[in-house]
Amino acid sequence: MSAGNGPAGGEPNAPIPIIGGTGALGYGLAVRWAGAGLDVVIGSRKPSRAGEAAERVRGVVPDASIAGFGNGEAATRGPIVFLTVPFRAQSETLNNLRDALAPEQILVDCTVPLAAAISGKATRSLGVWQGSAAEQAQEMVPDGVTVISALHTVGAPTLADPDAELGEDVLVCGDKKRHKAPVARLIERIAGLRAVNAGPLEMARIAEQLTPLLISVNVRYKAHAGLRLVNLPETDPWA
Amino acid sequence: MSAGNGPAGGEPNAPIPIIGGTGALGYGLAVRWAGAGLDVVIGSRKPSRAGEAAERVRGVVPDASIAGFGNGEAATRGPIVFLTVPFRAQSETLNNLRDALAPEQILVDCTVPLAAAISGKATRSLGVWQGSAAEQAQEMVPDGVTVISALHTVGAPTLADPDAELGEDVLVCGDKKRHKAPVARLIERIAGLRAVNAGPLEMARIAEQLTPLLISVNVRYKAHAGLRLVNLPETDPWA
Repeated sequence: MSAGNGPAGGEPNAPIPIIGGTGALGYGLAVRWAGAGLDVVIGSRKPSRAGEAAERVRGVVPDASIAGFGNGEAATRGPIVFLTVPFRAQSETLNNLRDALAPEQILVDCTVPLAAAISGKATRSLGVWQGSAAEQAQEMVPDGVTVISALHTVGAPTLADPDAELGEDVLVCGDKKRHKAPVARLIERIAGLRAVNAGPLEMARIAEQLTPLLISVNVRYKAHAGLRLVNLPETDPWA
Repeated sequence: MSAGNGPAGGEPNAPIPIIGGTGALGYGLAVRWAGAGLDVVIGSRKPSRAGEAAERVRGVVPDASIAGFGNGEAATRGPIVFLTVPFRAQSETLNNLRDALAPEQILVDCTVPLAAAISGKATRSLGVWQGSAAEQAQEMVPDGVTVISALHTVGAPTLADPDAELGEDVLVCGDKKRHKAPVARLIERIAGLRAVNAGPLEMARIAEQLTPLLISVNVRYKAHAGLRLVNLPETDPWA
């Protein structure tokens, strides 16, 4: 990888690759991070589509530092790689990234095993053999790559609208705090998001379920609900 | 049942039976509802223990209208019955309530299938054949009794301290809004709690998982975190 370095905490201004950055969540994250002045790299199966998405971001954030590449190239561009593809595409994408991802990189898996992947309801989820999409990802990435699970509950439309105010939490699951902390720092570069340490990667089994739960609430309330935990101490858990 | 009546919305001041009311959650609910001036009936396997719990509530809420009975007797005392036993005791308790529960009653299942039931971790859950503890309860109650799932995320210690301020949401799952609404109204008699319509009973599969998730957060933050959904409209969804 070009950004060959240790856990990403050491390089706060490294580019942020977003694999599947042409999708709703990836695009929304790109808008927010580009708006915060961070370098963003959008990955897509087709480099041309990644370039188009980068253009779209520039339409909203004129001074965005953003580029589009094929997924494999994009994944080499930064130490913390976000995977925002639909669950249906997760395994194939990770297979294709085997030669691109390198030890010491962190892969932030944002996929959610919605039953919609097999034309079921978006308020239902699929059982994943490994327990969660994130644990499936951990099984598939090359040795030395660490998977963190996050960003299941922030609505893509809210992210994509740079004028929409956020005020919600992002649950971060991963086995080691030293891998979660740099991910949390990136998430908190988006104004109005607070990263909450939800425990080891296996807690993704629950965190991923929050998406269909919020979808169930949203259809009833015609809303884009977000999650917030109350009664947490004010101290910075990532320090 | 003595409170032979239609869905409980019709009888706002009926007593509230709490089966397993000697446990932490049941006791906390009893403190809050008694403090709000509602009649509470605590049920326990041993009537004497139910009476002791009622006394304890009176120690905190001197003018409490509260009594203790065996579970079977308690369950007949009001149209909306709360089941707050540990998951380990859920099936046995429901078996024992078969002759006590009657058509038109609502059973609010608050049990959570924590792995702690089999001496596992409280941050993990057990797979329940029916999908959730609530769906297991629906299978076990007599015909005509409707199960609603709720109250998985409100901390028992916070409830039990009448001076602790609440400001959080309670997800309510159930197939029909007309059964969820009276439960929501009771929950909202506790100051600082908002009942959120989370969809059909099958959503308890996810709502019940929030307990181990919050436990995982709580051990990391040394906190008693609660849940809140943001960006919901202000209108009353239960009207």
